[in-house]
Amino acid sequence: MSEFPQVDTAVTAAVAAFGPYRETDPLTRAALLDAIADGIDGLGEDLAATVHRETNLPLARARSERDRTTNQLRMFARLLEGPDWNRPRIAIGDPGREPLPRPDLRLRHIPLGPVAVFGASNFPLAFSAAGGDTAAALAAGAPVVVKAHEAHPETSRLVGGVITEALHALGLPAGVFTLLFGPGRTLGQALVAHPGIKAVAFTGSRAAGLAIAATAAARPVPIPVYAEMSSVNPVFLLPGALADAPEDLARGFAASAVLGSGQFCTNPGLVFARNGSGLDEFVKTAAAAISETAAQPMLTDGIRAAYEAGRDRLGEIPGVELLARGTGEPAPALYRVDAATFLAEPALRDEVFGATSLIVTVEDEAETHRLLDVLEGQLTATIHTGQSDLDEAARLIPRLELLAGRIVHGGWPTGVEVGHATVHGGPFPATSDARSTSVGTLAIDRFLRPVAYQDLPADLLPKELRP
Amino acid sequence: MSEFPQVDTAVTAAVAAFGPYRETDPLTRAALLDAIADGIDGLGEDLAATVHRETNLPLARARSERDRTTNQLRMFARLLEGPDWNRPRIAIGDPGREPLPRPDLRLRHIPLGPVAVFGASNFPLAFSAAGGDTAAALAAGAPVVVKAHEAHPETSRLVGGVITEALHALGLPAGVFTLLFGPGRTLGQALVAHPGIKAVAFTGSRAAGLAIAATAAARPVPIPVYAEMSSVNPVFLLPGALADAPEDLARGFAASAVLGSGQFCTNPGLVFARNGSGLDEFVKTAAAAISETAAQPMLTDGIRAAYEAGRDRLGEIPGVELLARGTGEPAPALYRVDAATFLAEPALRDEVFGATSLIVTVEDEAETHRLLDVLEGQLTATIHTGQSDLDEAARLIPRLELLAGRIVHGGWPTGVEVGHATVHGGPFPATSDARSTSVGTLAIDRFLRPVAYQDLPADLLPKELRP
Repeated sequence: MSEFPQVDTAVTAAVAAFGPYRETDPLTRAALLDAIADGIDGLGEDLAATVHRETNLPLARARSERDRTTNQLRMFARLLEGPDWNRPRIAIGDPGREPLPRPDLRLRHIPLGPVAVFGASNFPLAFSAAGGDTAAALAAGAPVVVKAHEAHPETSRLVGGVITEALHALGLPAGVFTLLFGPGRTLGQALVAHPGIKAVAFTGSRAAGLAIAATAAARPVPIPVYAEMSSVNPVFLLPGALADAPEDLARGFAASAVLGSGQFCTNPGLVFARNGSGLDEFVKTAAAAISETAAQPMLTDGIRAAYEAGRDRLGEIPGVELLARGTGEPAPALYRVDAATFLAEPALRDEVFGATSLIVTVEDEAETHRLLDVLEGQLTATIHTGQSDLDEAARLIPRLELLAGRIVHGGWPTGVEVGHATVHGGPFPATSDARSTSVGTLAIDRFLRPVAYQDLPADLLPKELRP
Repeated sequence: MSEFPQVDTAVTAAVAAFGPYRETDPLTRAALLDAIADGIDGLGEDLAATVHRETNLPLARARSERDRTTNQLRMFARLLEGPDWNRPRIAIGDPGREPLPRPDLRLRHIPLGPVAVFGASNFPLAFSAAGGDTAAALAAGAPVVVKAHEAHPETSRLVGGVITEALHALGLPAGVFTLLFGPGRTLGQALVAHPGIKAVAFTGSRAAGLAIAATAAARPVPIPVYAEMSSVNPVFLLPGALADAPEDLARGFAASAVLGSGQFCTNPGLVFARNGSGLDEFVKTAAAAISETAAQPMLTDGIRAAYEAGRDRLGEIPGVELLARGTGEPAPALYRVDAATFLAEPALRDEVFGATSLIVTVEDEAETHRLLDVLEGQLTATIHTGQSDLDEAARLIPRLELLAGRIVHGGWPTGVEVGHATVHGGPFPATSDARSTSVGTLAIDRFLRPVAYQDLPADLLPKELRP
């Protein structure tokens, strides 16, 4: 069917595995997720070293990302041990109701079918072969075909091997998980177009995400796409916060901005800082911190080239002032612009993937709200407030709710906590579907749909819906 | 912006109303829904008479649909009185966690924004101005712009007037609800394309639903579309059921098939009946019942013309046998075909909107499963079993789960119970988004998205998430 026989083979196996896999007891799938987590732990320092070698990410980061990944797998395993993972509902019938009897209706959510997951360059573990989307899909009862990111094939192979072994050890069909290698633009698109695939999860560039969404919408049977694409993660420094502790704010901001060479979807690319007491100190301290930051290698040569080009283009826009530049290349950078220029120049709102941030100086609350009008959807929005800012913050937060999937107070957007109340998502173009999250237990809903059972005899009902 | 100034006016008012409306207390929205229900009750026989005059639906049906509509509004009002309508989650922080503190994360769902609802021809009340999607959106905190169906303008005006009065009486912005009149292909499409609209709900034809989905996907900011389009609602008569009570089955089937001139999304258009004991009696009794059924007027001349053409085309397909035809026009009809012909001829799977059904005779279980392979997604799938059929039914139901949103045992698909465990939805092309339902309390999820609040001081948290 496809020009990529490996896509056909993988999806055909996933389709064949779907029936038996989705009917496994949730505890079996919990055991699978635990076995995958244990297997990843068992890879030990080999895995961290491979991540480091393939991605330039420091060993400490590789280890912490590994722990995040295994915690995430185990979190979904614990979810499956409880009663709520598939959101069952029972509405008992009433044969005596007038004028018509009320039927017995019982509802649960079932998996959509085989899911295509695209590994992300910047999270070789937590958003790749055994990342959040794979964990959520496997928990839901959906087989997964992962398109490995070309930037970390050995990491993907090691983790993929663990999943395959875990399936084998538990006697589950091998088709529940396949890892594919090849270009996203051709093989990846063929995967999205394959009729056996019923949902897609992607983390990457806006262009690639939109291409995937277009392919999925053009299928004879369209399918949901969860693409996480682009976010500049605005930070709002209210006047009281700037007056209270401008230097602490600046140090916190700079640390978040350069963390991991800025290669996070949640990197704070925009800071809206109020003119007034504290702004000069904030700017001075932030600029000093960025100036002192040495360049770190980036994930790939392509990402580095795109970063340097994006950073330098930003500096060439009239009205944009370079405040600081780190040492070496790819150097972090910090720019400043006034609100009027920001409002007039759409290019200032684009994501520069990497450690470049733009401080926008703002005159007053009304101008803040005008700036909000031109922002696109975001994964996060962050506010810092002092005691005197609470009224303004209370007026700002409803705007931020419409802008972003997560509102952070007094901290920084980098560092996503994986839990039951996590939202890593947001309005377009942060994601293609603001109705879901890619991180946390709520992510299982991505791959589920509701089915109702009307007047089924107990023997024919799914076990969890039986009287 | 649009070539339809009334669309701009309506959406601009909806956008302006969104902020204050979504921040109303849920009990205020419950009061609004109750007031709308009371107002519809207050229209009394005028409303039933108007429905009857505009749609040809009998008075008794108009009254029962009115009761369904008001019950639905009140059901959402009761939902808003509980704690779960916006699915809050709290994950308390742990400042002492090592190596990093765990942030406090609290999640709730907020409305997407103004919703466009397209009234349906076949449910002038329950799927129109104050229908299920309007009720769910208003409950969620989303303003609604309804494109009234051209087949029942006065009915829409009466009900729309009630909503406008209820908003006024409660001091809520008029922009929370606007009723628009005009052609779906032009004005309706302009509404879907308007940047202020954040979701679309539609019930109607496959062609119109696909056109709306294409417009929504092509917007600079794509939006979710919930289009209910096409379903033939297959019924599976297992051998034991046919042997046990073929005549009762036939009478039940015929009553469901001709109910409301077959103008239901859940009309049973296809019956897969096993060759063997009982089939002849089933066919004979069903044919007799259809033959004795007099034509009833249909909703519009266009629907009638499309029905008669579709019915007659079906009869012209080689291998299709006319079993019965009712009296007058638009006459109900019953056809029969064997499984091999059905498998070979895709046109036999298309919906004929109206009281025409096709019996497909099936040799055995294996052939049933081959037939299932060629069916498109459905709103419902129905099975009838005898004692001897339970094993076969247990193998069939997992297939039906993947086919449809609701599985009915021992009954008929027409008649949708409105409740907490209802699913009125299903895989494409039954709907454009199988992840949701248009009927029942779960429908509120259509218009909500999750937002997480990280480390917000209590004063800045939404009330329901405060410590």
